[in-house]
Amino acid sequence: MKDTKAIPYKIYLEESELPTTWYNVRADMKNKPAPLLNPGTLQPMKAEELAPVFCEELVKQELDNDTRYYPIPQEILDFYKMYRPSPLVRAYCLEKKLGTPAKIYYKFEGNNTSGSHKLNSAIAQAYYAKKQGLKGVTTETGAGQWGTALSMACSYFDLDCKVYMVKVSYEQKPFRREVMRTYGASVVPSPSNTTNVGRAILEQFPGTTGSLGCAISEAVEVAVSNPGYRYVLGSVLNQVLLHQSVIGVETKIAMDKYGIVPDVIIGCAGGGSNLGGLIAPFMGEKLRGEKDYQFIAVEPASCPSFTRGKFAYDFADTGKVCPMAKMYTLGSGFIPAPNHAGGLRYHGMSSILSQLYHDGYMEARAVEQTSVFKAAEEFARVEGILPAPESSHAIRVAIDEALKCKETGEEKTILFGLTGTGYFDMVAYEKFHDGLMTDYIPTDEDLQKGFDGIPKIDL
Amino acid sequence: MKDTKAIPYKIYLEESELPTTWYNVRADMKNKPAPLLNPGTLQPMKAEELAPVFCEELVKQELDNDTRYYPIPQEILDFYKMYRPSPLVRAYCLEKKLGTPAKIYYKFEGNNTSGSHKLNSAIAQAYYAKKQGLKGVTTETGAGQWGTALSMACSYFDLDCKVYMVKVSYEQKPFRREVMRTYGASVVPSPSNTTNVGRAILEQFPGTTGSLGCAISEAVEVAVSNPGYRYVLGSVLNQVLLHQSVIGVETKIAMDKYGIVPDVIIGCAGGGSNLGGLIAPFMGEKLRGEKDYQFIAVEPASCPSFTRGKFAYDFADTGKVCPMAKMYTLGSGFIPAPNHAGGLRYHGMSSILSQLYHDGYMEARAVEQTSVFKAAEEFARVEGILPAPESSHAIRVAIDEALKCKETGEEKTILFGLTGTGYFDMVAYEKFHDGLMTDYIPTDEDLQKGFDGIPKIDL
Repeated sequence: MKDTKAIPYKIYLEESELPTTWYNVRADMKNKPAPLLNPGTLQPMKAEELAPVFCEELVKQELDNDTRYYPIPQEILDFYKMYRPSPLVRAYCLEKKLGTPAKIYYKFEGNNTSGSHKLNSAIAQAYYAKKQGLKGVTTETGAGQWGTALSMACSYFDLDCKVYMVKVSYEQKPFRREVMRTYGASVVPSPSNTTNVGRAILEQFPGTTGSLGCAISEAVEVAVSNPGYRYVLGSVLNQVLLHQSVIGVETKIAMDKYGIVPDVIIGCAGGGSNLGGLIAPFMGEKLRGEKDYQFIAVEPASCPSFTRGKFAYDFADTGKVCPMAKMYTLGSGFIPAPNHAGGLRYHGMSSILSQLYHDGYMEARAVEQTSVFKAAEEFARVEGILPAPESSHAIRVAIDEALKCKETGEEKTILFGLTGTGYFDMVAYEKFHDGLMTDYIPTDEDLQKGFDGIPKIDL
Repeated sequence: MKDTKAIPYKIYLEESELPTTWYNVRADMKNKPAPLLNPGTLQPMKAEELAPVFCEELVKQELDNDTRYYPIPQEILDFYKMYRPSPLVRAYCLEKKLGTPAKIYYKFEGNNTSGSHKLNSAIAQAYYAKKQGLKGVTTETGAGQWGTALSMACSYFDLDCKVYMVKVSYEQKPFRREVMRTYGASVVPSPSNTTNVGRAILEQFPGTTGSLGCAISEAVEVAVSNPGYRYVLGSVLNQVLLHQSVIGVETKIAMDKYGIVPDVIIGCAGGGSNLGGLIAPFMGEKLRGEKDYQFIAVEPASCPSFTRGKFAYDFADTGKVCPMAKMYTLGSGFIPAPNHAGGLRYHGMSSILSQLYHDGYMEARAVEQTSVFKAAEEFARVEGILPAPESSHAIRVAIDEALKCKETGEEKTILFGLTGTGYFDMVAYEKFHDGLMTDYIPTDEDLQKGFDGIPKIDL
């Protein structure tokens, strides 16, 4: 069967070929990701300590470094069938435009109403909340992709969904807010008068436009103080990478079906949910010594956790209410430049990916904003899809790699993750078209301020 | 093969199964659609009269009532492969929610960056313009779906694309405008200083926010007065319905593959491009007496061309510069209520569909705006997709039909066209959520004003 079939523009698996298990890459890691720590005791968090905040089953998944495959519950499989398989696309038109001998593929996760891969984990987290008999969940959202995905998932399982949306986004991105309302979520601009932490911040800074850190603190407070509620998060956590492995597993099934073997696998990295999901089964083969692949994480030069951050235990949120995680971090006080468009602005990085990067299994590149939008526009014009700014970081490096092949004549097979669409990011595109977009690279002094906030503990 | 396969949530044809011909339903019509008339001579327009405005090959297609199948040129097939097949979806979740014994299917055309089916004809029209050696094309756009589709198509074939966008939309829908700019189109708010007609209107009405009629007139003026340019249109015309037949042909191939036979076929109707495309091959069977289907056109109660219009020769544009067409019309001076959200606001209707409706091959229903948004939200919550307001007219009637089946116990198979997504229509959704959306049904007196402008000719 290998290599004999012509490769179509888009590979859609049959429903019967879809993955039925998630793959837990931790099971194949020799050096496991470091455990979450209780910031008070500096001891690893136990399940019972996490239970007031997270759903039981998700706590189990979070702490489980051993189970290799998790069967995907039927209810989640049924939901996946509404928008999966996502297409694995052969970028014939981009290849032609670039004149490269490289073969370029991308896994496109944007063909659902939430507009990104976030839905893969949102539906899983909503399912476990429902199964536990909860009334609802709380979360925070910045640009709104995660909030949208969670709203859709909660609507499907008839769960209440409270989203704390950073005030500046709430006001500047009314469309995202309305999509969430369409799915029945209650969307609250943060900081708000609905929580103690929100009221305190509003009193201290009456004119604040909010921050992700503050929104997290509000969402957690509401979850722990309302019976029948838990808090859910859309990236960074081990459980999220587990759910997102559906991207990689599906990609691998499709590639195996057509005998395609990628040489390079590229993904954008903010908290790491997409990259971790895409590479999971390929990384598993590398960890087990069965195959070798080159993995490249792409991050914005304005928020360079991997390429310029420290590998250390740090607070996961600016409010310092969450457990501490060992990760590549810029310090929980690091604030990305205001000119930065789109997501990928988290100060830290998934513990799993951090460990893999630290152990040399992955590379990382930092790219500048205007070059990312140039790649986005070039891609949109030949491949038709209008990419999200986040996803376009991966496009930038995929194009760079393909152009290298053009110079060397190598016929590499390049795979990248196209996480979502940019319909709600046209303000950033407008800036780019009007020549008003700028680049920002933090100085060493800028970074030092963030590093100073990393707690001095050595374990 | 019939009826033996389990029906998946989504049917994606293989690349090798995709349609390679468009189907021209006119070939099977006993009563052909009436010809376009020269408004000066009241004689049928000849090819040479249309050639200064439209591309040669498209003129041929426009006038050809006889050729049953048109092979789709390879360059267009290649482009189609980037975003087609579109999925034929079994609405299992909606059926369950409604508790209906009916089987509901929808053909979803929104999975491309233009967000609608318009791209199917845009790429064809751009191709013929390129083949003719033209430099570029001009068009008008209201809400922006057609302009976006044409921008994408022109970018692919490296054609210049000038879009006259109704000024009020240009200002209120900046995101659509930026998508067009991403694809390299020049977007001009209409009325503008770039044309005689625009300057004249601006002088007379300095504060005007524009109209589709004015934008058409500007686009046509630019096309006929610039060597190497032609004008293109996204709906109503016979050529557009021909290209859009790809929707129906693809649907029929997928249904035949799984042994599915629809009883009722439903589509929203503005100018008729989607409905005409979806029903084409099924209507062909009905016209040839091979099979029977129930066809339902759905239009807004605020712009009821079929259900309350006249079947008469009328001007196709408010500027009265275009040929006259025989169609169901509310009069070229009819202006839909300002509270009407989204498209489907054209005063007339495709001549092909008008003839079929007149001859009793089709039914039509008019539905009110708030009930359409109720259906949209209900659909979004269970099927995941956020529908465009236009498409939601079809959803409304599909749900109504399914609920009738619930009462009668009939297990009808219902097929409807889901033309696009509503990402750029969140202002309308917001009004709906806030309870600010109102319904409008024109009185007989309101309609009479439009009818008074229909020319008194009898042919």
